Amino acid sequence: MTKILKKLRGPLVSLFFLLNMTSTGYAETTVSAEIGFIFNTLLFLICGFLVFFMACGFAMLESGMVTSKSVSVICAKNIGLVSIAGIMFWMFGYNLAYGIPEGGYIGKFIPWSDSSAVDTGYADGSDWYFQMVFCATTVSIVSGTLAERIKLWPFFLFAAILSGILYPIVMGWQWGGGWLATAGFSDFAGSTLVHSTGGAAALAGAMILGPRLGRFTKSGAAAPVKPFAASSIPLVTLGVFVLWLGWFGFNGGSQLAIGTADDAIAVSTIFLNTFLAGAGGVLAAAVTTRLGFGKTDVIQMLNGCIGGLVAITAEPLMPSPFAAILIGAVGGVIVVFGTKLLFSLKIDDVVGAIPAHLFAGIWGTLAVPITNPDTSFATQLIGVLSINAFVFIASYIVWSAMKATIGIRLSKEAETKGTDVTETGVIAYAIRD
Amino acid sequence: MTKILKKLRGPLVSLFFLLNMTSTGYAETTVSAEIGFIFNTLLFLICGFLVFFMACGFAMLESGMVTSKSVSVICAKNIGLVSIAGIMFWMFGYNLAYGIPEGGYIGKFIPWSDSSAVDTGYADGSDWYFQMVFCATTVSIVSGTLAERIKLWPFFLFAAILSGILYPIVMGWQWGGGWLATAGFSDFAGSTLVHSTGGAAALAGAMILGPRLGRFTKSGAAAPVKPFAASSIPLVTLGVFVLWLGWFGFNGGSQLAIGTADDAIAVSTIFLNTFLAGAGGVLAAAVTTRLGFGKTDVIQMLNGCIGGLVAITAEPLMPSPFAAILIGAVGGVIVVFGTKLLFSLKIDDVVGAIPAHLFAGIWGTLAVPITNPDTSFATQLIGVLSINAFVFIASYIVWSAMKATIGIRLSKEAETKGTDVTETGVIAYAIRD
Amino acid sequence: MTKILKKLRGPLVSLFFLLNMTSTGYAETTVSAEIGFIFNTLLFLICGFLVFFMACGFAMLESGMVTSKSVSVICAKNIGLVSIAGIMFWMFGYNLAYGIPEGGYIGKFIPWSDSSAVDTGYADGSDWYFQMVFCATTVSIVSGTLAERIKLWPFFLFAAILSGILYPIVMGWQWGGGWLATAGFSDFAGSTLVHSTGGAAALAGAMILGPRLGRFTKSGAAAPVKPFAASSIPLVTLGVFVLWLGWFGFNGGSQLAIGTADDAIAVSTIFLNTFLAGAGGVLAAAVTTRLGFGKTDVIQMLNGCIGGLVAITAEPLMPSPFAAILIGAVGGVIVVFGTKLLFSLKIDDVVGAIPAHLFAGIWGTLAVPITNPDTSFATQLIGVLSINAFVFIASYIVWSAMKATIGIRLSKEAETKGTDVTETGVIAYAIRD
Repeated sequence: MTKILKKLRGPLVSLFFLLNMTSTGYAETTVSAEIGFIFNTLLFLICGFLVFFMACGFAMLESGMVTSKSVSVICAKNIGLVSIAGIMFWMFGYNLAYGIPEGGYIGKFIPWSDSSAVDTGYADGSDWYFQMVFCATTVSIVSGTLAERIKLWPFFLFAAILSGILYPIVMGWQWGGGWLATAGFSDFAGSTLVHSTGGAAALAGAMILGPRLGRFTKSGAAAPVKPFAASSIPLVTLGVFVLWLGWFGFNGGSQLAIGTADDAIAVSTIFLNTFLAGAGGVLAAAVTTRLGFGKTDVIQMLNGCIGGLVAITAEPLMPSPFAAILIGAVGGVIVVFGTKLLFSLKIDDVVGAIPAHLFAGIWGTLAVPITNPDTSFATQLIGVLSINAFVFIASYIVWSAMKATIGIRLSKEAETKGTDVTETGVIAYAIRD
Repeated sequence: MTKILKKLRGPLVSLFFLLNMTSTGYAETTVSAEIGFIFNTLLFLICGFLVFFMACGFAMLESGMVTSKSVSVICAKNIGLVSIAGIMFWMFGYNLAYGIPEGGYIGKFIPWSDSSAVDTGYADGSDWYFQMVFCATTVSIVSGTLAERIKLWPFFLFAAILSGILYPIVMGWQWGGGWLATAGFSDFAGSTLVHSTGGAAALAGAMILGPRLGRFTKSGAAAPVKPFAASSIPLVTLGVFVLWLGWFGFNGGSQLAIGTADDAIAVSTIFLNTFLAGAGGVLAAAVTTRLGFGKTDVIQMLNGCIGGLVAITAEPLMPSPFAAILIGAVGGVIVVFGTKLLFSLKIDDVVGAIPAHLFAGIWGTLAVPITNPDTSFATQLIGVLSINAFVFIASYIVWSAMKATIGIRLSKEAETKGTDVTETGVIAYAIRD
Repeated sequence: MTKILKKLRGPLVSLFFLLNMTSTGYAETTVSAEIGFIFNTLLFLICGFLVFFMACGFAMLESGMVTSKSVSVICAKNIGLVSIAGIMFWMFGYNLAYGIPEGGYIGKFIPWSDSSAVDTGYADGSDWYFQMVFCATTVSIVSGTLAERIKLWPFFLFAAILSGILYPIVMGWQWGGGWLATAGFSDFAGSTLVHSTGGAAALAGAMILGPRLGRFTKSGAAAPVKPFAASSIPLVTLGVFVLWLGWFGFNGGSQLAIGTADDAIAVSTIFLNTFLAGAGGVLAAAVTTRLGFGKTDVIQMLNGCIGGLVAITAEPLMPSPFAAILIGAVGGVIVVFGTKLLFSLKIDDVVGAIPAHLFAGIWGTLAVPITNPDTSFATQLIGVLSINAFVFIASYIVWSAMKATIGIRLSKEAETKGTDVTETGVIAYAIRD
């Protein structure tokens, strides 16, 4: 991978003036500190509620993707995990990430409290809210992959560990001013910090948990897909549109300020690049599946959108519109082939979160130097490897420990009946004539 | 209830420094009147559209909760009621609430008209919009409880009376500067004014209307729940996420200003407390149902979220994060046991709106003095009792009068066929292989 | 039509003081250029993401309206068309519309690039984003009408032509300062430019494509509606609520500025008029179907909302609240009878987009002079006729050319099996007990 990227670097860098936004560069701002404070706080709150709503997007996407026997429980998981993540992030996460000493590895295990002052540039509470919904997003990514066979409460326990400890640690390495930030790693809104982290934790879980019963035939060839058909494509579509909407907040808010004209221009650029990368992902997946496999696969188009959005997340500001489309399109193609790869490896990712978040996140993070001259492939690679290795190994240990103690997998009887009946006792669709 | 609260007050007040936010207190603002005007107007518009969208949340929650024979009509009710509420609030409601003389009981029956001026601090139209969506929310609460057996147009008539007269009267008592405001009652964003009002109106309706046919067995013990199963859990989940999203606008906008750093900090605090209270409600309901009844009930988790949000609505600014979680958690527990209580009383609340909005609203309003030293239990109790009594009695009279004249309940044949076929002629789900 | 309108003009103009908002008129603003720049950019971004989300609203509305055999493909179309529209609008559309010389007909075929400067009043990227989502909306309107029998990729080709060429041309005629703007035509947020354009393109397509197999009986009388029943009314309802939400951005953002108190007041007025027109449309359709045809048709209420919103879009600022309700209500009635008209003409509009967007758009545009004294019926009529004629004829030619070459209609076998199976290979609902 690095080898290929290194080879490509020459021609890519020569495309730089085509791909890169030119700076706008205004002189000093005329906005007073207090007005800037209000603007910045407003940005965090507005972008924060958009990112909060991504939890709904994940809930809908996952509800639509699982079979109709496991929908109620996936709803319970999604409303539960965002609640757990928020409380854990208040109790431990925020200060674990932000209390880190410069160049360090870990911060303080104490609850967050408000310390707003005009000279910090924004209300402390608005920053907490914005960072907390990122933490919740990380956990949301995990729930879909493991659907239909994991026990509810062990999943909640993992959600607490991921949101309270693992994610804050990697968040602190970069956004808390830790060793990766010091090393020069760049991940604007979290292709790696959020999306790969969620994807790597999901991958570790999927490997330890094993696939759903009957998901893969012994021959490995033609698995009977029908029993595993998605319960509702419109809900998946709704979920993806909600995620796309939320992503404007996710990337736009990561500018962290809108109190000057320069910042307002930057946020605008991020909005349009985020849009175009998602569009590139959709169309790349549509063309790839149509030309490659005969039919235009709507599920891959929808997941391709996510792949494109994840890919642009590491650097949504510097690319030109054209570069944003390309970066997103590659993300969409990665989703299509990543899904095939996981299937051939007999790793059961129910909703396709690993290709969309982990694989496309790696691509997006490594692609940053194409448009951002202040970064290097080497440093990006260090960031990608260290964060993914840490999260994967730590998650693997946690999942293994849970498996050995409280158990994480439903019984065969329970899985056959479906999680809805056995875990929550509420069937998802009661439609009668 | 008061007795218990009085007993608890001692230890609770000693927890005050743990539970209460410390004030941030800036000096004079540097923001000009016109810039402040724009910020405040923007707050009303943004928070207003979030609250508007709560109408969609209620529509989805209720569509998912009713049986599949009554989904189209619940959609008709929800899109209809928000339309009726808005027009009535323009015709009568706004001036009935705001035209009240200080310490008085009722205002003016004239249509609202714009009287914007920079020195009022915000555009008049933005305030109307923000207040109107609160009015619509109040009516939305009623529709779910009475689903599946009430006639469509009598429901619309009640919606007009509630939005045009009853809600504006209680709104005026407090937010219009009427007698409750004068008495020192405190209800920041409307735990009682909006949520209990909706819940009390629903309760009166449910009592007069009676339960759905066959809902309760004669023995009172094991009712056959299956025929009354929720039609779609993902739609309920969608509805709750949309409501949670909208609640940031509901509570955050009730700060009524964001034109100073202090206000921006306050709105941020409200956002995070609103989030945490919802989270507390979800988890409390999850734990309560899992430990108390064996299975983790997803419907109670979702309604527990609402209960937590309703509870924090009376005072989302003063509590510390920890207090917000607790207040929300109690709201979630109240929802679980309130649902049991209604069932044992054979009151048929189809969506659980009475526990979530009325009961949790009472709790939230009475809990204000725990974190807000400028309030007293006695005054809070006066507000809770007077508003709930007024709304319940007035609604009871209106429902009774309607029952005696135009009739409010569908015929047995119509109810058995389902409201969708008999009232709108459009079946909700036409899913064929 | 003109004749009737001319006759009505007298009494209507005499109602002017009842119907028209009085101007608020502040003196010079105290807001600095940079702060105004930030406010305006924020308006475009916030309103832009609301309009972006309308793409989701259309996807849900159309998913719910088609039969359950064509849901996955309508999802693919909607996520695909917004992607195509965005990329085409970047490549050609923006500069084709805005690069037009004053009084001219067509602009430049070059990709958009950022040229932000504080003195333009807003970030260039935020304007692109806002205009782009309008372009996407135009295309969204087309997809529903042609559902269930059009081939996927030919539809995508038309989407590219409409978003890259046709829409930008009419957009430039008015908003790009072209000949219609010079002539004095007025279309505030696009009743004609966006909604009629989409509707006229859909009408041309429906005429060339023909109705679904078996949709109309030979006698023309009682068509068997059941096989064409909407697959999910709650999804339609969700879609309409999302559209209503998005419309606040659609109309509110079209004020193009919120950097002065006057602008803030204008945006507020637009929000409330937009709300009230939608409400008027809902209730007018409810009353019309109840009184006219016996049952309260929920689908017509929902489409009536769209009709009301489209009608107010041409002039959401000048009408009084009362006038906004009336304008919307007429839009709602037009939807009900427009649907009947199309049915009698045997034009198969699967979702009712032509009455709601084309017919109500004509009404709204012609109604502008009732409340806006700076406009005339004659000029409005010129605008309506020229734009609709251009779009209809151009679309008719494009559809015909595509039919003659690549083909646009599915085979009978494919249509009978359903588009989901034949085109995307993914069934929409896999619900098992």
